[in-house]
Amino acid sequence: MRTLEWEKTTQRLKMVDQRLLPSTFSYIYLESYQEVSESIRDMAVRGAPAIGVAAAYGMVLAALHSEVSSYDLILQDLDQAARILEASRPTAVNLPWALKRMLLVAKEQSHSSDSLFDALLLEAEAMADEDVETNKTLSTFGAELINDGDMIIHHCNTGALATVDWGTALGVIRMAHEQGKKIHILVDETRPRLQGARLTAWELSQYNIPYDIITDNSAGHFLRSGKVNKVIFGADRVACNGDVANKIGSYMLALAANANNVPVYSVFPFSTIDIELASGNLIPIEERPQDEVLDLKLKGLKVTPQDASARNPAFDVTPHELITAFITEKGVIYPPFEKNLIDKMQGN
Amino acid sequence: MRTLEWEKTTQRLKMVDQRLLPSTFSYIYLESYQEVSESIRDMAVRGAPAIGVAAAYGMVLAALHSEVSSYDLILQDLDQAARILEASRPTAVNLPWALKRMLLVAKEQSHSSDSLFDALLLEAEAMADEDVETNKTLSTFGAELINDGDMIIHHCNTGALATVDWGTALGVIRMAHEQGKKIHILVDETRPRLQGARLTAWELSQYNIPYDIITDNSAGHFLRSGKVNKVIFGADRVACNGDVANKIGSYMLALAANANNVPVYSVFPFSTIDIELASGNLIPIEERPQDEVLDLKLKGLKVTPQDASARNPAFDVTPHELITAFITEKGVIYPPFEKNLIDKMQGN
Repeated sequence: MRTLEWEKTTQRLKMVDQRLLPSTFSYIYLESYQEVSESIRDMAVRGAPAIGVAAAYGMVLAALHSEVSSYDLILQDLDQAARILEASRPTAVNLPWALKRMLLVAKEQSHSSDSLFDALLLEAEAMADEDVETNKTLSTFGAELINDGDMIIHHCNTGALATVDWGTALGVIRMAHEQGKKIHILVDETRPRLQGARLTAWELSQYNIPYDIITDNSAGHFLRSGKVNKVIFGADRVACNGDVANKIGSYMLALAANANNVPVYSVFPFSTIDIELASGNLIPIEERPQDEVLDLKLKGLKVTPQDASARNPAFDVTPHELITAFITEKGVIYPPFEKNLIDKMQGN
Repeated sequence: MRTLEWEKTTQRLKMVDQRLLPSTFSYIYLESYQEVSESIRDMAVRGAPAIGVAAAYGMVLAALHSEVSSYDLILQDLDQAARILEASRPTAVNLPWALKRMLLVAKEQSHSSDSLFDALLLEAEAMADEDVETNKTLSTFGAELINDGDMIIHHCNTGALATVDWGTALGVIRMAHEQGKKIHILVDETRPRLQGARLTAWELSQYNIPYDIITDNSAGHFLRSGKVNKVIFGADRVACNGDVANKIGSYMLALAANANNVPVYSVFPFSTIDIELASGNLIPIEERPQDEVLDLKLKGLKVTPQDASARNPAFDVTPHELITAFITEKGVIYPPFEKNLIDKMQGN
């Protein structure tokens, strides 16, 4: 089962609606790139790798439903679709990365509008397949770092749901579990959207991996207790110097791990690296609607005062000094990150 | 208006039911020490200073309803009541502090059962009055540290609701506001019980102090932005070396403030100091029911999987190295905390 896949018979993108999980497992079917953009914006699909591939399929839909016929005009439509898809969410670089790759394929079609749709679909399918393969490769590298008996804190959701399948940081955990290592996960609930409490807990239940949900603000207490062996999370954009933009809360978690000498691993495919960005301070941080923080009920009662306002940054930046290593499909990468990222990128 | 007060006509303890705020403002009326104990355990009343005074009134109720008549037997009843009240919640030292003070008064009554109730009520009323006076005094000291234009992160609730009236850390904020300083508060929502989003936001709305609610895990992002000037929170128990047990999340907040050179102030009356405890590692940390973490609904849907489990420590310990100064009714206290706390305690 994939989080998102192309439905050939109906020419639509089928995806798990993550807004309703774990209460309801259901699919939505997207028929236009505008619908794909909206599904990314509203977080029906989320997770850097998953939104990259979703956007790629969005480009397929843009080509399919383009109302013009000449190659040049279709290319204009695709450029327009790419702009709208890219604007859906600003932080994860996998989104522009996927769109660039799709536009490149479109532009390589030698001015033939006939082959355009087929070429784009082929590329999107390849990206989806690569994502799963990449995740399994990096998970194999990462699982070598996990020891039998480890207690691991995980932030947000980085599992099958955040990717096409298998997952990144949660993929590492899953691989270690499949290798027979006994591990226990402390699942950061991950306010405000609760991807940990909703999605990671649900995935871990499916995989029979033991876990406890914790509030994000209690991770420090557990780290200080000396009982936590590792902290592991994904990434939405990695700057050239190794600074990591990831789900809000990652930075405080990494600080608390460092203060207690617990290693911090950030897990991502190379498509998450924005090598042109010198430092994490240049990464655009999305600020989402206040309602995500304010619309909370306890025992049926609204929690916040009627006139309350909120700030809601969706990501933060963890400076590279706080990260022990990156786990990627090209292996585990240790500091100095800038040199070692470029080396790996060049295939050294 | 006081958060809790003795109702003379009916001989009951009247208190604001904080579980229903801000949706509903209502009072509960407690007629026995067992009801007081339950109100503390279930957090109808919370906040270290408030639960200390509530427990003192619990002792008044124990004396009032004792079914024995001899002085010695009533003292036995009071000892029993003190044990039950103290067991309501383990972390805040104000609870045993208040109970010890009440038992001392009872034992000073020269073996007369007639004067016992009157003496205990007088003492409880004195403690309530002292609490308000103490809070205003420490707030005056604290407000001197607040500058016009400050952006301040506040954790949990430390306002009128956490005390008999006025508040500690929030009292400092209130005093600075009354002095005409323009300040803006970032209110940590404070999972899992959301005392920030529910109670602090509600109090700030009443006082017309501008604020935004933030998720606890986003404080680091704002601190790293360079726009936050101070972090301020209360305390539930302070060890002799200056380690502070406070609401879960305080430790990670203090770490993030330190990493960004933002001062951290812990605000409390001297009754919160447990001078016999060498370090914060010896402070008992309450672990509360899992449901407080798990019972969360978004848009009417249960968030966590049916079989999910959780860990729920209610407090953590912030090592004294992370704290810039204590704000108390005896003045602002800087490191070295052990020496300076003992000096102040001895009236130097």
